[in-house]
Amino acid sequence: MAKDHIVKSFDNELTQIDNGIAEMGGLCETQLADTIEALVRSDSDLAERVVIQDKRIDELEHEVNHHAVRLLALRQPMADDLRLAIAAMKTSSDLERIGDLAKNVAKRVAAVHEVARIASVGTIARMGRLVQAMIKTVLDAYIARDAEMAEDVRNQDAEVDQLHTSLFRELLTYMMEDPRQITACTHLLFIAKNVERMGDHATNIAESVIYLARGQSPAGERPKGDESSTTVVRA
Amino acid sequence: MAKDHIVKSFDNELTQIDNGIAEMGGLCETQLADTIEALVRSDSDLAERVVIQDKRIDELEHEVNHHAVRLLALRQPMADDLRLAIAAMKTSSDLERIGDLAKNVAKRVAAVHEVARIASVGTIARMGRLVQAMIKTVLDAYIARDAEMAEDVRNQDAEVDQLHTSLFRELLTYMMEDPRQITACTHLLFIAKNVERMGDHATNIAESVIYLARGQSPAGERPKGDESSTTVVRA
Repeated sequence: MAKDHIVKSFDNELTQIDNGIAEMGGLCETQLADTIEALVRSDSDLAERVVIQDKRIDELEHEVNHHAVRLLALRQPMADDLRLAIAAMKTSSDLERIGDLAKNVAKRVAAVHEVARIASVGTIARMGRLVQAMIKTVLDAYIARDAEMAEDVRNQDAEVDQLHTSLFRELLTYMMEDPRQITACTHLLFIAKNVERMGDHATNIAESVIYLARGQSPAGERPKGDESSTTVVRA
Repeated sequence: MAKDHIVKSFDNELTQIDNGIAEMGGLCETQLADTIEALVRSDSDLAERVVIQDKRIDELEHEVNHHAVRLLALRQPMADDLRLAIAAMKTSSDLERIGDLAKNVAKRVAAVHEVARIASVGTIARMGRLVQAMIKTVLDAYIARDAEMAEDVRNQDAEVDQLHTSLFRELLTYMMEDPRQITACTHLLFIAKNVERMGDHATNIAESVIYLARGQSPAGERPKGDESSTTVVRA
């Protein structure tokens, strides 16, 4: 009977972990969509809601970690369960970071509001939609333990990186043309960087899914296209 | 005899984990010092060495993770050992990120080199020295399992955040005064942000040490002083 109890607790932890990850993923998608909408519409109320709602993602991260640690502590976990606990801790940490980055974008909305809107906001919205789709797909892959779906997500990140590099160049040009835009454009540079980093975290999750499904991390460097760190625009 | 073997393997994993973390920490300190020196002296050879040496930190992260997973798999770990495996995985991940951020600073050195040096570089060097000291102390705290020393590190991060906020403001002002500085100042903004994030990762490690030493994460919000996300400078 004691053993039955342990087995039931064990299954319970497994279910709680998957549910927690799925809920975190859904919230991250919404937070990203909302923060981009707040930026596009200069909606400071919506931006404030994004800042407040981030707390729920942090709570869920603690819950997932709690269940993962319990899963490890309850009994000698099988190789599969050990991988699941590790992948869950890594994934919840990546989702928590995505939530933080969405919150940071929301905080910057007021600073961008200060000046006239520029075309770059549209490109940021496009990056946001790409990353939102990556988060959705990688969470489906996580729940289905589908390594091929995760590989697809891993390959999509290069497009986000390329958009980011061209945005970087564009925003520097705007600043040079009109110094009154410097504050707003600087915050847009950091917003674009945040969205690019959310794509990196979705890629990290893809790698956790591959580890979870195949028992080993993907071979080779991940595809990269972000060249903003070495980009120079002359006035 | 089989049991003896397991006990020995277990102690071996524990030692390997601490050694790996200590080596990673030492490398991160050096990488940060070198990347800041490369920036201050516009030394592109040194910057390139920082980029190359980051690979060793990545390898060590894999090694620490490997030993932590083996520690979990070898036998039902005691509560202390379970905490150690989890803290080691989190800490090695934070150190790997510090290494990545140092590498990203190094990549930007050439883009800053393009234009005249400005005073902000000195402030970035000061932030770098503060964060380097945080990394050194938090690693000492990790090896000694000293929660109080880790608390001190956690409290030092606010000074780094404040320096970052004032640098943000200063760099925006430079850009407005001289649009030819825009590219260089933008890279300096991202370099400053990278150093600030290294401080955040040192703070994360401090929280892992507190969890490791006391069995629970520190209560309350961490002290924060970075207000750059809401900073507006008018032309």
